[in-house]
Amino acid sequence: MTIQTPLSEYRFDPDAENAGIDAALIAIEVARLLKEDRTDEIRQFLETLELADTAALIEELDEASDLTVMHLLPLHDQAELIGYLRPSSQVSVATRIRKRDLVALMTAMSHDERADLFKQLDEEAQEAILPALSKAEREDLRRLASYEEWTVGSVMTSDYAVVRPEMTSSQAIEALRTQALDAETIYYAFIVGESRELLGVVSLRDILTARPRQRVSEIMDTEPVFVRVTEEQEEAARLIARYDLLALPVLDENDRLVGIVTADDAMDVSEEEVTEDFHKGSIVQPLDMSVAEATIATLYRARIFWLVLLVFGNIFSGAGIAYFEETIAAHLSLLFFLPLLIASGGNAGTQSATLMVRALATGDVRPTDFGRLLARETLIALALGLTMAFAVSVIGVWRGGPEIALVVASAMVTIVLMGALIGMCLPFIFARIDRDPAAASGPLVTSIADVLGVVIYFTIAARLLEL
Amino acid sequence: MTIQTPLSEYRFDPDAENAGIDAALIAIEVARLLKEDRTDEIRQFLETLELADTAALIEELDEASDLTVMHLLPLHDQAELIGYLRPSSQVSVATRIRKRDLVALMTAMSHDERADLFKQLDEEAQEAILPALSKAEREDLRRLASYEEWTVGSVMTSDYAVVRPEMTSSQAIEALRTQALDAETIYYAFIVGESRELLGVVSLRDILTARPRQRVSEIMDTEPVFVRVTEEQEEAARLIARYDLLALPVLDENDRLVGIVTADDAMDVSEEEVTEDFHKGSIVQPLDMSVAEATIATLYRARIFWLVLLVFGNIFSGAGIAYFEETIAAHLSLLFFLPLLIASGGNAGTQSATLMVRALATGDVRPTDFGRLLARETLIALALGLTMAFAVSVIGVWRGGPEIALVVASAMVTIVLMGALIGMCLPFIFARIDRDPAAASGPLVTSIADVLGVVIYFTIAARLLEL
Repeated sequence: MTIQTPLSEYRFDPDAENAGIDAALIAIEVARLLKEDRTDEIRQFLETLELADTAALIEELDEASDLTVMHLLPLHDQAELIGYLRPSSQVSVATRIRKRDLVALMTAMSHDERADLFKQLDEEAQEAILPALSKAEREDLRRLASYEEWTVGSVMTSDYAVVRPEMTSSQAIEALRTQALDAETIYYAFIVGESRELLGVVSLRDILTARPRQRVSEIMDTEPVFVRVTEEQEEAARLIARYDLLALPVLDENDRLVGIVTADDAMDVSEEEVTEDFHKGSIVQPLDMSVAEATIATLYRARIFWLVLLVFGNIFSGAGIAYFEETIAAHLSLLFFLPLLIASGGNAGTQSATLMVRALATGDVRPTDFGRLLARETLIALALGLTMAFAVSVIGVWRGGPEIALVVASAMVTIVLMGALIGMCLPFIFARIDRDPAAASGPLVTSIADVLGVVIYFTIAARLLEL
Repeated sequence: MTIQTPLSEYRFDPDAENAGIDAALIAIEVARLLKEDRTDEIRQFLETLELADTAALIEELDEASDLTVMHLLPLHDQAELIGYLRPSSQVSVATRIRKRDLVALMTAMSHDERADLFKQLDEEAQEAILPALSKAEREDLRRLASYEEWTVGSVMTSDYAVVRPEMTSSQAIEALRTQALDAETIYYAFIVGESRELLGVVSLRDILTARPRQRVSEIMDTEPVFVRVTEEQEEAARLIARYDLLALPVLDENDRLVGIVTADDAMDVSEEEVTEDFHKGSIVQPLDMSVAEATIATLYRARIFWLVLLVFGNIFSGAGIAYFEETIAAHLSLLFFLPLLIASGGNAGTQSATLMVRALATGDVRPTDFGRLLARETLIALALGLTMAFAVSVIGVWRGGPEIALVVASAMVTIVLMGALIGMCLPFIFARIDRDPAAASGPLVTSIADVLGVVIYFTIAARLLEL
């Protein structure tokens, strides 16, 4: 499988930031070979590529070339490749190939991926495909496509491997062998009763290590971890991570097995969830599409709500300043320290909030740890505040003399302590009132710290300077 | 495997935030049964638990009870259980059980987990264990423990399954059967040459679907994806996610197979990396331990550097204000809008920065997309700025009349646009100069936006009001 083409010089950088660049370079070379009709060389090169890389390459090719290259692969690989393409590219490919080819492709695709693709197609395209599928496939497709976007149902697949409880382990191996081409995984096999209720799960490892005559019913796990089809998809991802599973059975409300979620799909779900947490943490409302493909209107809507809300929140800071106008007018040099003080409160608060949000999300700390953590945070914030007060008092003496320095240093300790404690408490409060702690974000903490910072600073200034 | 004890009423909530609470409740019940010497009931209950849940339970028990409960499990389960405990709990257990038990436990543990535990032990404990192990185990332990914390070597394991190229597929299945108890996974088998150089990889699925007489050499993948032992651990996680692998071979500089990274370990690495990104994004320097277990000094050190640095950065905002002292003294009502305007620039910038940081990290956008994204961001920021200018001009008219409203509205559009563009560009600049885009964080963007916000606001005010 060695290749002599110049393509062989290229390799894919697994770093997400660079893999796309490699794909773009390779695409130029492939487009050149296509023009010269050297498809054999391209086919040879494709054989050395992983399908994920081929997909990245296909994304880079222009329309027409991408289909030509895709068709160089055997059908089974094409079906797998589709799943690696971006949703919009999948639709683009699906609408440009012949209907017969699309039906063949969708029949060969894994059940969850074809349901995802089907959902993206417009009604006309959907209606064109359905009659061409077998009845079983059509029902499966309709059912999988019917689950709401955020549910376990929307990420599960129905092509799981099945064995019967009365099979011996050698018979079970034989049964898995016959399902190996179509099943999403054969490393876990599922045992269901007459009305498809889940009786147990057995791993291929356990089947292999059993005695050849031992029956599946003797080695299966009869109380496996499972998830309900209507629960949030994150639940499935959490279970798979917590119990180190390769696949998780999904049951409907009648305990019937309706699908499985595999570990690689769980990783995708986790990645989406993390992205959502990052966005929430910077007051961007969840996007249900990729940032690269989002329209201006979508991004505008996701961002404007909190921005405007915080404008109104910040009116309180302005009101605080207005309230102290006399003190400020008498000591205009106080203004020099205003940005620095209120920013410090917000920064310390952002640190505390993020540390807690993430620790709560990973289960590193629990809501019940609150008291202990609060005590620790108070000490840390005091130490941070004192260090920063020292730094700022040096500037204070230089800019406004010892009196101003004293005001600024005292304000700094108080503001940092206040900011850090607000930042720490907010995620716990959110968790308590059943909201996502991730929304206890930097900008929200910063806004609260701003208001209080203004009040604290000028109150201290008014007291100390008027003495 | 049904249980009649009251324990059976309890179940573990898979949500990370709640699982700990369940464990605490169950621990109280288990402690009560222990006092009454009803160990059989506990043993029966443990049989129904997944090991991850048993570990959570053990974390909640006091010293002595935890060992008693652990010893109710068979050795093989104990060895697996240890890996689910927190590092500090692992060390606590290891230092409290008898040396003979510890040696038995470490012999049964998976190679990567025992190396991690070994590294945590003090030298005395290390020296006590080593002579009791077999020479091969000792060398394996020393080697795995020798890799630096952030490398692929530190997360790989050496108990991978091996088959020989000349084996038929039935012989390969037989070979995997005999390795099933000790190998980390038997779903991928590795083929190595005389000096342990990697010749290929074959999945158990491919072995099963091959004809019984077909040889491993005919079905193995001779150009598998691999990673170098000295690369960053994130690289392994990225490859596993990109190519949907269950295990990734790790090669040394001489192309010898030295270990594998499994998908579940890759998930842990990704989670650590995400946590690091969250922390960087809120100016907390990477912690190499859990937040719950970090000391005050550790957290102080991780937080103080950027806090103080940004204090000095914010001096520029203060200097900006001082520079416009005359304008401010003449129009003190301008101060009312100062917090609101500079906060808006920071908030819009934080949104843009986070959207880009995360999109770059997931490969959703690439550095080469910069131009297109900049154009889009400019339009979005203009739309956001205009909306916010409208909102704020209403307050402006109310607080200071139409002139002030005009100043504030123009400043808002300019500041939001500027904030958003800085927030968008910074991650790309960081990527360009080979720094982690995650460090292009909210607080950093906010500080820059603060300085520019002050200057923009008062420049516009000075121009418009002095006309």
